[in-house]
Amino acid sequence: MKTPTYDDLASHCARLHRLQHLASIVGWDQAANMPPKGNEARAAALAELAALMHRLRTESTLPDRLARAEQEPLSDHQRANLREIRRDWRYANAVPTELVERRQMASSRCEHAWRTLRPANDWAAFVEHWRPVLAIAREEAALLSQQTGLAKYDALMDRFEPGMTSAAVDRVFGVVRQWLPGLIQRVVDKQSREPVLEPAGPFAIPAQREMCRRVVQRLGFDFEAGRLDCSTHPFSGGVPEDVRMTTRYREDRFLPALMGTVHETGHGRYEQNRPRDWLGQPVSEARSMAIHESQSLSFEMQLGGHPGFAQVVSPMLAEAFGMQPAFEPGNLHRLLTRVQCGLIRVDADEVTYPAHVILRYEIERPLIEGLIEPEDVPALWDAKMHELLGLDTRGNFRDGPMQDVHWPESMFGYFPCYSLGAMYAAQWFAAMRRTSPDLDTRITRGDWAPVFDWLCDNIWMQASRWSTDELAIRASGEVLNPAFLRAHLEARYLG
Amino acid sequence: MKTPTYDDLASHCARLHRLQHLASIVGWDQAANMPPKGNEARAAALAELAALMHRLRTESTLPDRLARAEQEPLSDHQRANLREIRRDWRYANAVPTELVERRQMASSRCEHAWRTLRPANDWAAFVEHWRPVLAIAREEAALLSQQTGLAKYDALMDRFEPGMTSAAVDRVFGVVRQWLPGLIQRVVDKQSREPVLEPAGPFAIPAQREMCRRVVQRLGFDFEAGRLDCSTHPFSGGVPEDVRMTTRYREDRFLPALMGTVHETGHGRYEQNRPRDWLGQPVSEARSMAIHESQSLSFEMQLGGHPGFAQVVSPMLAEAFGMQPAFEPGNLHRLLTRVQCGLIRVDADEVTYPAHVILRYEIERPLIEGLIEPEDVPALWDAKMHELLGLDTRGNFRDGPMQDVHWPESMFGYFPCYSLGAMYAAQWFAAMRRTSPDLDTRITRGDWAPVFDWLCDNIWMQASRWSTDELAIRASGEVLNPAFLRAHLEARYLG
Repeated sequence: MKTPTYDDLASHCARLHRLQHLASIVGWDQAANMPPKGNEARAAALAELAALMHRLRTESTLPDRLARAEQEPLSDHQRANLREIRRDWRYANAVPTELVERRQMASSRCEHAWRTLRPANDWAAFVEHWRPVLAIAREEAALLSQQTGLAKYDALMDRFEPGMTSAAVDRVFGVVRQWLPGLIQRVVDKQSREPVLEPAGPFAIPAQREMCRRVVQRLGFDFEAGRLDCSTHPFSGGVPEDVRMTTRYREDRFLPALMGTVHETGHGRYEQNRPRDWLGQPVSEARSMAIHESQSLSFEMQLGGHPGFAQVVSPMLAEAFGMQPAFEPGNLHRLLTRVQCGLIRVDADEVTYPAHVILRYEIERPLIEGLIEPEDVPALWDAKMHELLGLDTRGNFRDGPMQDVHWPESMFGYFPCYSLGAMYAAQWFAAMRRTSPDLDTRITRGDWAPVFDWLCDNIWMQASRWSTDELAIRASGEVLNPAFLRAHLEARYLG
Repeated sequence: MKTPTYDDLASHCARLHRLQHLASIVGWDQAANMPPKGNEARAAALAELAALMHRLRTESTLPDRLARAEQEPLSDHQRANLREIRRDWRYANAVPTELVERRQMASSRCEHAWRTLRPANDWAAFVEHWRPVLAIAREEAALLSQQTGLAKYDALMDRFEPGMTSAAVDRVFGVVRQWLPGLIQRVVDKQSREPVLEPAGPFAIPAQREMCRRVVQRLGFDFEAGRLDCSTHPFSGGVPEDVRMTTRYREDRFLPALMGTVHETGHGRYEQNRPRDWLGQPVSEARSMAIHESQSLSFEMQLGGHPGFAQVVSPMLAEAFGMQPAFEPGNLHRLLTRVQCGLIRVDADEVTYPAHVILRYEIERPLIEGLIEPEDVPALWDAKMHELLGLDTRGNFRDGPMQDVHWPESMFGYFPCYSLGAMYAAQWFAAMRRTSPDLDTRITRGDWAPVFDWLCDNIWMQASRWSTDELAIRASGEVLNPAFLRAHLEARYLG
């Protein structure tokens, strides 16, 4: 059967994919390597590329070609690809190229300034760089909202999490807000009666790096098709054939670097295992960012908080830093599942993590809707940290609203994906336990293949073949159900 | 005065410059970071970009716009810029986009294969990857020759060294061939009576890295606008705002890493000091590759072989590796000026270096002209190594015709630039001595500012303002004169 228009669209996608390769690697370089004086030229180069890609994504012939391709005798897979091509077109087409260019320049500049302003705790200077980023994001939200009929914030969120609305997030987060503070309290009380030995540092950074590398390898990441480096804000980028993960090291603690790395490895394996035959086509892309986070959190939280993880990592720590009682598997597991109300999201345990996300969601949504301004953020931040975690953040912007790279980078609408991902991860592990009743025994004795195999079959290889809801139903029998996260947390922390 | 067409061409150049930024950084990443499985996708992405840039460089409206801009009331500087824009257009326009794409793919693949085939000494497998690269280079040479009226090899060389012809190279190299073997013999004889202490290794790589960094800093490189990393074949890339230099380390010797780094720093400072007001325009580009090499060799050979260099570096070595008698300045200077007939070009001293270049020139020229084939190279290589340096290379492809990245990367016509650069470097230092009669005293006491200032004023800041001949005349009073190299070598090694 001939499908000339579809084939032509597929070539167009492959071309965009090759340009996206450049953007990903150069973007990684900007975060991991670039010296400070390179930033202006880098921002201009990335803006040029973003504009070029945007022009390709909005070529005037596309609507007609999409309509004609839909009439061709396509396979189901091709049809799913076409659905994703159309989705991409709809989003790109809502925004003019000059806005894409402005957004890229403003967020490159703001992210770059943030790198020095955050350690300097300089909120006032940061706001001056952030204001244009927010203004452009609001403009974009308005345009996307017109195009999609979604509310402004929802339209931004939909880029990361297709099909998700703030009404649904409100519903889910509303339920979590009811049981979370009580659960945190009970867990903290319980753990206060369980003594934990603190590891004694310092932990030399080359040894940490080598140890992280071994753990990443144990988690199945292919170092022939990726790297692990350093950056201020850990992330996973690059391309499926060459995944670039980053972490950050501190001499006095090794757990943040280790668990940050485990987190990124979940993202990395998803990317490395997207269906090879379809690479370059939208249908081969990761389904959504909540699904992506469900992979990083399956690794970091579901597996990392399992007693079997401590069993495997304990001897690696002993080898890296010399044996000490704190590395004994039981103690290490207690360290890895310790719940503490802290200021930093990326260092948060899985019990308090949703509080950090709810707080950010409750601030960025009115920010985008124009109901509040950057000046209002610190006070709101402080009030919500009091309410949710009982912490005072006054004057501490560095560990408050300046802590994440998302806002400087204009990634509004992303934060909910973390907690939706945690819910999906709990749902995936519940499904795995139904398929393999001996799952926990196997994980405990270091056999993690059932986890990786299940994720590979049900998530990684499915890519964007189905909508998120369909993917969840096929994998676990139902759409997102936050009850699994609650059950998981209660079983692990109060069981 | 209004210059609308010129301004429009200048914007076009700025756009190309921003895309070139991406190509430079991604190309650097390919050499310095990329894991093996990333290569196919990387080659495809770079080929896409090369094709895109090529289409921009050959837009059909350009001849008309160039002609109209030439009628506008331009400043001298703008006129020089227009001359360079026209030069770039003429070269780009001679070659179809599909050839550019094919060349990029073939050379990416061949360079990648070379990385493992060279250590494996696998010439036969290498030739299979190299044959398509050569075929495309011959095709390109034929097209460029038609466009420019130059001979095929000359047309390739002209891309790197505008205005240089093989007739001129033959003349210059012909003279060198007359005095070089005798000079090498006399220097080797003389040095055989001057005992030199060998440094005792091993030299820990982190200490080498730190030591190289200090030397680079002492040479005035700005680390806020550049980096020093590792790659198989050291090079200098990146962009003026973010120069990426690489070197390679071996535990048993530190001099190759050190002097390779000093060499790249010469390239790096040229790039970092090109005129800022004109960045993005062809007139701000480095004048030519021989002029570029004259900078790296001014650093590595003219300065690196000066007794004042050993004075400054000696305490840095003692700090990096602990003091040993070999690091004493007099001995270090003898090490840095020791002449030995060796197999490897990049490790060669300045006396034997021209022999390596003459050999490559005498092989790659008939290769491009179709007079010989890859199969003929090893025997020719061996014969010429015998003749020029008295060395046997039979069966040693790794340290023979496979040693350089240039041929796998399709950089035919580049090699002569190294020795032309050495000649220019000698000519620059002779000019400096005329301006500052106390130059050697100042270099010896560690005051290298007169060198950097002279190079900055006469070369770096001049960029492509003048033709190479005009640049040489303005800087030194005459065009390229190889007598300065001979005089320099005789003074330094037989004086």
